[in-house]
Amino acid sequence: MNHSRSARVGVIGGGIRGGMFARALQENPQSELVAICDRSPGVLSAMVAQLGVPGYASTEELLAAHPDLDGVVIATPDFAHREAAVLCAQAGLDLMIEKPLATEVDDARAILEAADAAGVRVMVGFENRWNVRYSAVRTRLGADGDPRISAQIINLNDTIFVPTEMLSWSSKSSPAWFLMPHSLDLACWIGRTHPVSVYAVGARDRLTEAGIDTWDRVNAVFTMADGSHVALNSSWVLPESMPSVFDFRYEIQSAGQVVHIDGADDGVIVYDAQRGQLVQSAVHERAGRIHGVPIDMVGDFVRLLRGEPVDVPDARDGLLITAAIEAVHTALETGDVVSISV
Amino acid sequence: MNHSRSARVGVIGGGIRGGMFARALQENPQSELVAICDRSPGVLSAMVAQLGVPGYASTEELLAAHPDLDGVVIATPDFAHREAAVLCAQAGLDLMIEKPLATEVDDARAILEAADAAGVRVMVGFENRWNVRYSAVRTRLGADGDPRISAQIINLNDTIFVPTEMLSWSSKSSPAWFLMPHSLDLACWIGRTHPVSVYAVGARDRLTEAGIDTWDRVNAVFTMADGSHVALNSSWVLPESMPSVFDFRYEIQSAGQVVHIDGADDGVIVYDAQRGQLVQSAVHERAGRIHGVPIDMVGDFVRLLRGEPVDVPDARDGLLITAAIEAVHTALETGDVVSISV
Amino acid sequence: MNHSRSARVGVIGGGIRGGMFARALQENPQSELVAICDRSPGVLSAMVAQLGVPGYASTEELLAAHPDLDGVVIATPDFAHREAAVLCAQAGLDLMIEKPLATEVDDARAILEAADAAGVRVMVGFENRWNVRYSAVRTRLGADGDPRISAQIINLNDTIFVPTEMLSWSSKSSPAWFLMPHSLDLACWIGRTHPVSVYAVGARDRLTEAGIDTWDRVNAVFTMADGSHVALNSSWVLPESMPSVFDFRYEIQSAGQVVHIDGADDGVIVYDAQRGQLVQSAVHERAGRIHGVPIDMVGDFVRLLRGEPVDVPDARDGLLITAAIEAVHTALETGDVVSISV
Amino acid sequence: MNHSRSARVGVIGGGIRGGMFARALQENPQSELVAICDRSPGVLSAMVAQLGVPGYASTEELLAAHPDLDGVVIATPDFAHREAAVLCAQAGLDLMIEKPLATEVDDARAILEAADAAGVRVMVGFENRWNVRYSAVRTRLGADGDPRISAQIINLNDTIFVPTEMLSWSSKSSPAWFLMPHSLDLACWIGRTHPVSVYAVGARDRLTEAGIDTWDRVNAVFTMADGSHVALNSSWVLPESMPSVFDFRYEIQSAGQVVHIDGADDGVIVYDAQRGQLVQSAVHERAGRIHGVPIDMVGDFVRLLRGEPVDVPDARDGLLITAAIEAVHTALETGDVVSISV
Repeated sequence: MNHSRSARVGVIGGGIRGGMFARALQENPQSELVAICDRSPGVLSAMVAQLGVPGYASTEELLAAHPDLDGVVIATPDFAHREAAVLCAQAGLDLMIEKPLATEVDDARAILEAADAAGVRVMVGFENRWNVRYSAVRTRLGADGDPRISAQIINLNDTIFVPTEMLSWSSKSSPAWFLMPHSLDLACWIGRTHPVSVYAVGARDRLTEAGIDTWDRVNAVFTMADGSHVALNSSWVLPESMPSVFDFRYEIQSAGQVVHIDGADDGVIVYDAQRGQLVQSAVHERAGRIHGVPIDMVGDFVRLLRGEPVDVPDARDGLLITAAIEAVHTALETGDVVSISV
Repeated sequence: MNHSRSARVGVIGGGIRGGMFARALQENPQSELVAICDRSPGVLSAMVAQLGVPGYASTEELLAAHPDLDGVVIATPDFAHREAAVLCAQAGLDLMIEKPLATEVDDARAILEAADAAGVRVMVGFENRWNVRYSAVRTRLGADGDPRISAQIINLNDTIFVPTEMLSWSSKSSPAWFLMPHSLDLACWIGRTHPVSVYAVGARDRLTEAGIDTWDRVNAVFTMADGSHVALNSSWVLPESMPSVFDFRYEIQSAGQVVHIDGADDGVIVYDAQRGQLVQSAVHERAGRIHGVPIDMVGDFVRLLRGEPVDVPDARDGLLITAAIEAVHTALETGDVVSISV
Repeated sequence: MNHSRSARVGVIGGGIRGGMFARALQENPQSELVAICDRSPGVLSAMVAQLGVPGYASTEELLAAHPDLDGVVIATPDFAHREAAVLCAQAGLDLMIEKPLATEVDDARAILEAADAAGVRVMVGFENRWNVRYSAVRTRLGADGDPRISAQIINLNDTIFVPTEMLSWSSKSSPAWFLMPHSLDLACWIGRTHPVSVYAVGARDRLTEAGIDTWDRVNAVFTMADGSHVALNSSWVLPESMPSVFDFRYEIQSAGQVVHIDGADDGVIVYDAQRGQLVQSAVHERAGRIHGVPIDMVGDFVRLLRGEPVDVPDARDGLLITAAIEAVHTALETGDVVSISV
Repeated sequence: MNHSRSARVGVIGGGIRGGMFARALQENPQSELVAICDRSPGVLSAMVAQLGVPGYASTEELLAAHPDLDGVVIATPDFAHREAAVLCAQAGLDLMIEKPLATEVDDARAILEAADAAGVRVMVGFENRWNVRYSAVRTRLGADGDPRISAQIINLNDTIFVPTEMLSWSSKSSPAWFLMPHSLDLACWIGRTHPVSVYAVGARDRLTEAGIDTWDRVNAVFTMADGSHVALNSSWVLPESMPSVFDFRYEIQSAGQVVHIDGADDGVIVYDAQRGQLVQSAVHERAGRIHGVPIDMVGDFVRLLRGEPVDVPDARDGLLITAAIEAVHTALETGDVVSISV
């Protein structure tokens, strides 16, 4: 693209995340939100009214109407990235795709191949890489050349609000698909390694009782390429009395160091008449603009579109995580230790 | 025994724990410390001087000199319980044996069989069962008849001080043998279930470099008889800058509840010129007497000896934990999921 | 008294605390609960049914019926200690009186004088002195001969449940009378000093709106005899969503050390469907008996009655705290710095 | 100024903060760092080498050489703001001045009057107003129109490293001058009120022993214009073993809510062989640029210079805090409750 002008971007998917990305693109001085897309007429008209840009019911229509886009943000439900991603890649657009890249290895591979064939770039929204508390740890542990991380133990949970009220498509997901892409990508990025095998156990109980046919909880142990281990524990049926909708406790053991991270605690807790709540500021407004971790991530996508150098997770990272989480589900079903390869 | 008199008890093993048990027996108004035993002449003479009771270099000598004992506390190193336990059982004495009962299933079984043959009782020192914070949780989770615990995740670590300086026999032990009997027995007791299989990974790195041929760290996932899971993470090479020599973080997920326990934090931290330290009071002195969790445990052994009703972990509990930890080591060596049976 | 028999004790006041003390006296092998007293016929008959000892509507009746008592525990409301205490002292009985000794200096002085005249001992229930976490800190800070404590900052709060639902007589009390005897006695005992002047501010707002004519909150700064300072902050209108009915955060700054104490946190938090709650075990049951901090306090009163040496807070400690808290209220009313003398 | 070009800014004072501000101005796309000034030739030449802009030994020289500046950042030691500020104001430049505005009311008033006379704007560097965790709380507590904050208790401490090693001029400062401008401005801003009187106590002990003639610790209680109270506790002799060079614990009690803030804890703690340390990210680098709270503050100064609307603390806020802290010192010396007026 011509670097002297703003990057022209469309957003596909009008949920919480898509709406936030669209707003961030409007507020970013180096990008222009050109158009949006959502299958649901109600969601789409609300977004159009709020954002003041044209809206389309399908990716094809959006692409047809706006042949001059530079890139697209894809924020459809986790299992529904493939179609939009392949179409946009074939149209020559760079892509930012929400994590996980896909919930089947076939889909992830199809996206990767379409992007490679078209010569476009894919950035995957592993948002934690933009969170200062994690990048500070990564910098510190890599400072001596050899971090020699031995083990990472990550408990990332959601309250039962998420699968029962927040997501309409939780039965097509699981704690592994919804939560572990966050924790596993972080473990790979901080540990500078990747998983080669996994053992996993889990429970199906409360959600199936509630008519949502998926796992309540998954506990997985990964062996990594460098011989280290990553233990991931994720439930999404925790009680709603927890002080935050998510609970993220992360321990890293390296030679001579141990790091404890509380990812949900920004140092502020408020007790009111009803409950105690952690006040979080990962996304916040200041002087009428939205700021924070996902906004910085969108900023890097805009830089990527403008040809500036950025260091972002790509489709191969996305494929790897998809393959690893698919292997978790195989391990859950078989009870075996499952190899991971891509 | 005649309930109107004190229980007459010997202590075998004069380490930190044996010395503490001996003192507790002296201070308990319903017991009498009769004699002690340690293989090391130096340790033995120091104990004799301190406690003012006869000391012996071997279990045989102690038993020969004191035919009127009611019971014996065995606090030899973890791997060295069998000989003393079998001899004392054959002499008709009830036994309190430090956890783990043994570090080989054969040893555990031999102790159990000797005790059964002699008709004596064996109490295993799974001390956490006497800790109010754990018994309060057990009571609470069992209150409704059906606790439905789904998962337990226990991180129990030691600093590298323990295997390199505190223990002379760490190469004959491991994080699994030294730490997991605590966490696994707790998980069984609170969950009212027992393990049926295990997968485990680990690292051998810093201790082998330091000439101590054992594991630095073990991460194990147990499937329990009731379908729940227990994930245990134990390292004993954590940095000595930690605020406590141990680090015990325990999460229990049941239907509708989650419990977070910090077992190392008694609510007090002191920072002095050199370091920050958690001040713990699990063992403390008051008015010249020693009090606390292990002292209450000894108190229950005295009650057992006096014929009072007590609810304590027995040799079968000890055998089960020994079999489970042995299975952890098999899993570590083979990379397979290993069945546990006793 | 004859040391070979149990101490014979009566309890005056049948509230939560009086009932607990009565039970503790029944379960203590060295004491006998002889009789109880409460003005309320309903409370009294319930206690009599539960404890199986005679009950009386007045102190006079109890004393007349039981001339052979050794001591009495007085657990009437804070403002109502004087009459019972003076009568019992005149009857020659040693006394354990709940904190504060009184809510007027005149009352405290009358109790002290009656006790001195009769030659009886008075023990005041400053319960924190029996709490291991505080005694551990006191021992540590006094270890070098000169603790040189410079400042103590204690936030001790209650939720609004306490003045609006738990206490029927909160309008006759205040955060200063109800909470600061705990924190101020602790500061005196750990700091080995006493207050000489105080400045205080406060608020009257929510409780007066609710028809309870007393302070919501008091903040006081004491200058101590050794030149150190003690800042006490106490509100009793905190939201009921707090994880514990009380909130106790205590910081001690000495030369070269700082101690942080969380007095409400015993290391266990449970989140259920409704709320998060700290699980506390300062009072707990084990094997059918009640244990914990106040039970140990009663145990020392029994020892005192049996003539054993004990180190307990006495009437002069009680008078001092009463005078200091009375001075807090004078400071609140006048806005001046108020001297404290007894 | 002409809004189409960058704001042209000088920095006076080349310490840690001045250097950081200079870098922030260089990296901000809407500002140009024109020149710097420091009295110390060594400091100045190092800064010139690093930043590549002209350096001057005095404010006069800098102003003479650069008549086209838009504004100046003043980051001289706390007590040395007046001369530079008045000169620059008289030269018609807008000012950003580090907190506190001055350490004497006369100085603060002189700066305010010079700015008013010259018609320039003064922004005071009360940095916490740019910290998301505090602005989130301010927004929340003001949401209902009437926050009715009743009390604020703020413990803001430094380790002894700060007065003995970090600052060369600590004997001209105190915990009140160095720390309380942060906590008191925050209390005023969040509480939307200002102080009218103060009582204070303190200690002079360890620093005077070390030859630094100032206070170790100050405890102050402010009565605010709206009848609420603010208790500030600040020591700067805490042990260096603390996990952070500062310690910031803040409690806000409003009608029906209580907020607990830990200002030093960003959720990450690292234990290495020597010590445990909180990893903080209030200032951090990303993609070669410096980011964080003070950088956002400089950004607002650049916006102010460019004529954009900003909401920043001004010289009257600065004067008020200076008057209040001066009153703290009067209260420390006299033992009286001291009125505050400006």
